[in-house]
Amino acid sequence: MSEQGYHVAILGATGAVGTRIIEQLENSNINVASLKPLASKHSAGKTVTFNGQTVEIEEATPESFEGIDIVLASAGGAVSKELLPEAVKRGAVCVDNTSAFRMDENVPLVVPEVNADQLKNHHGIIANPNCSTIQMMVALEPIRRKYGLKQIITSTYQAASGSGQAAIDELIEQVKTYVKGEEMSADIMPVKSDKKHFPLAFNLLPQIDVFEEDGYSHEEWKMIHETKKIMKNDMNDTELKVTATCVRVPVVIGHGESVYFEMDNQDVTADDIKELLSHSPGVIVEDNPAEQLYPQPLTAEGKRETFVGRIRPDKENPGAFNMWIVSDNLLKGAAWNTVQIAEELVKRRLIK
Amino acid sequence: MSEQGYHVAILGATGAVGTRIIEQLENSNINVASLKPLASKHSAGKTVTFNGQTVEIEEATPESFEGIDIVLASAGGAVSKELLPEAVKRGAVCVDNTSAFRMDENVPLVVPEVNADQLKNHHGIIANPNCSTIQMMVALEPIRRKYGLKQIITSTYQAASGSGQAAIDELIEQVKTYVKGEEMSADIMPVKSDKKHFPLAFNLLPQIDVFEEDGYSHEEWKMIHETKKIMKNDMNDTELKVTATCVRVPVVIGHGESVYFEMDNQDVTADDIKELLSHSPGVIVEDNPAEQLYPQPLTAEGKRETFVGRIRPDKENPGAFNMWIVSDNLLKGAAWNTVQIAEELVKRRLIK
Repeated sequence: MSEQGYHVAILGATGAVGTRIIEQLENSNINVASLKPLASKHSAGKTVTFNGQTVEIEEATPESFEGIDIVLASAGGAVSKELLPEAVKRGAVCVDNTSAFRMDENVPLVVPEVNADQLKNHHGIIANPNCSTIQMMVALEPIRRKYGLKQIITSTYQAASGSGQAAIDELIEQVKTYVKGEEMSADIMPVKSDKKHFPLAFNLLPQIDVFEEDGYSHEEWKMIHETKKIMKNDMNDTELKVTATCVRVPVVIGHGESVYFEMDNQDVTADDIKELLSHSPGVIVEDNPAEQLYPQPLTAEGKRETFVGRIRPDKENPGAFNMWIVSDNLLKGAAWNTVQIAEELVKRRLIK
Repeated sequence: MSEQGYHVAILGATGAVGTRIIEQLENSNINVASLKPLASKHSAGKTVTFNGQTVEIEEATPESFEGIDIVLASAGGAVSKELLPEAVKRGAVCVDNTSAFRMDENVPLVVPEVNADQLKNHHGIIANPNCSTIQMMVALEPIRRKYGLKQIITSTYQAASGSGQAAIDELIEQVKTYVKGEEMSADIMPVKSDKKHFPLAFNLLPQIDVFEEDGYSHEEWKMIHETKKIMKNDMNDTELKVTATCVRVPVVIGHGESVYFEMDNQDVTADDIKELLSHSPGVIVEDNPAEQLYPQPLTAEGKRETFVGRIRPDKENPGAFNMWIVSDNLLKGAAWNTVQIAEELVKRRLIK
């Protein structure tokens, strides 16, 4: 850090997440001396606005990171794998929003409300968990700490923006085609690099990311393994069982999650959980069925918090509950969690 | 039955389900001597087409059922409650698509693939289960019979058409408003008679039907209690535990369900279940992740079958599996199941 503050580079400055990282950084408590937006050759020369100043985007190369203190990366796993070690070599600390380093045992996987203490173990790279994992951790970790967790069974309702701006554009285009009564086409969803593509508009796609050999999608794999890493378990430690079904839904922004969880403590009531979560960091409890108050993507959009509602016991299984969680997947699920990690690094003096 | 066949009345002939009941009846093996479409005063005088003939809609009154053999009803619970006993008094057998009589212990609740044998116990009224219950029963009952079921945990992704044509129209209107960048309005979803209304387009509404005092929605209550009635359990018999979270999604036709189930038998493999379901009535297995084959609402629309895929074990909980189920909620979830019950009644000579 210079006397003027931190020199910050944004890797992937033009994407749905990158643009929001810049916005969140503007509204953070980090003292930014300079901002260097980086992207592919294709976007070099375009500009972004930061604190009222126009800044030109440069092509990302290893040399781009000379003199940089903090890198906030969201340009895809391959780019992070290639360039973040170069940034670390040049003295920068990197917060990576891709999946490239998440399961690396030398890389802390951090949701600040949950495990900010892990930041002290960083070796230059800190990973941001998957969007659907983050919001579930914010809601479940207070419960795990107080009452113990035996099992998590989650079904997700994930927005198109999780696949980036092109996926949003495709969904809107399909919707326009559908209302005209014409045949919809698809080139991006569910996974751009996969063989087949299907319309998402007015549809449900139970595939997020590619499939593993065991029949789980990679998104489901991420939710299971990242949850265990964050909650300090592993697949060999069956203390906490986790399983997931991930589904893409025709929503632009905001992931929903229907979560069933079983606690060690069988005497907990719904009111106990509401009380606990209403005082938990980053959580807003929206749970009043009589007033039809429950989390919705449209009302969560643009907010940094994770919204929790529909908390109710499984009456036939003591200690087990159903819950509904919604958060803005581009903010808490990506840009805000990334900037929030950087804030914590600064606060804890973990950046030179 | 006259020599020419059965005299059939359709109660609620103009709705999203009623019009499909007429279509399904045209394509059924029931010998229809005459069709009498009935509706509210408001729709009397309009016409429907049946087997190429134009038939005028009459206002439904108790006298409408004179000389009628079969009534297929889908005009709302209050109408069924008032008029079906009148039809029974006049000698008709009624298949009711509303929730009016489902939990009545004198009324069989029937999914023909699952419990057609219950039809013999009818006293003039047979109830069609809730749409989301039906498709889950078609997929799970073969598993319960062969391997035993201990627990079902389901999260639904339900289409707008479950709330009728007006809900579909509202969704399409909202979508048009959204793409123009204007503010969406809502008067119908999530529940027309409830206090507040929210847009469904690009949103998720974790409320289907009104809320019970225990925090469950009535739709969730229906899934739990109808499943137990059909699978021959009750809330006091905890042999089979059932819980549900029901969510409305911006889809026009086709409900999705993420179902987690735990069997008595812990040695069953995913291949065993696929093999079993591929020979089960009314089920089509669409399960080949390598070829991106899985059930989708857009591909299930217009089909009578229930589509099942994404079958995979919870690796940490022996005997437990995740599964993804999709069916056309207006056909197998309503119109087709209704007509299919009538076919079974005829086949089993349970109509005079």
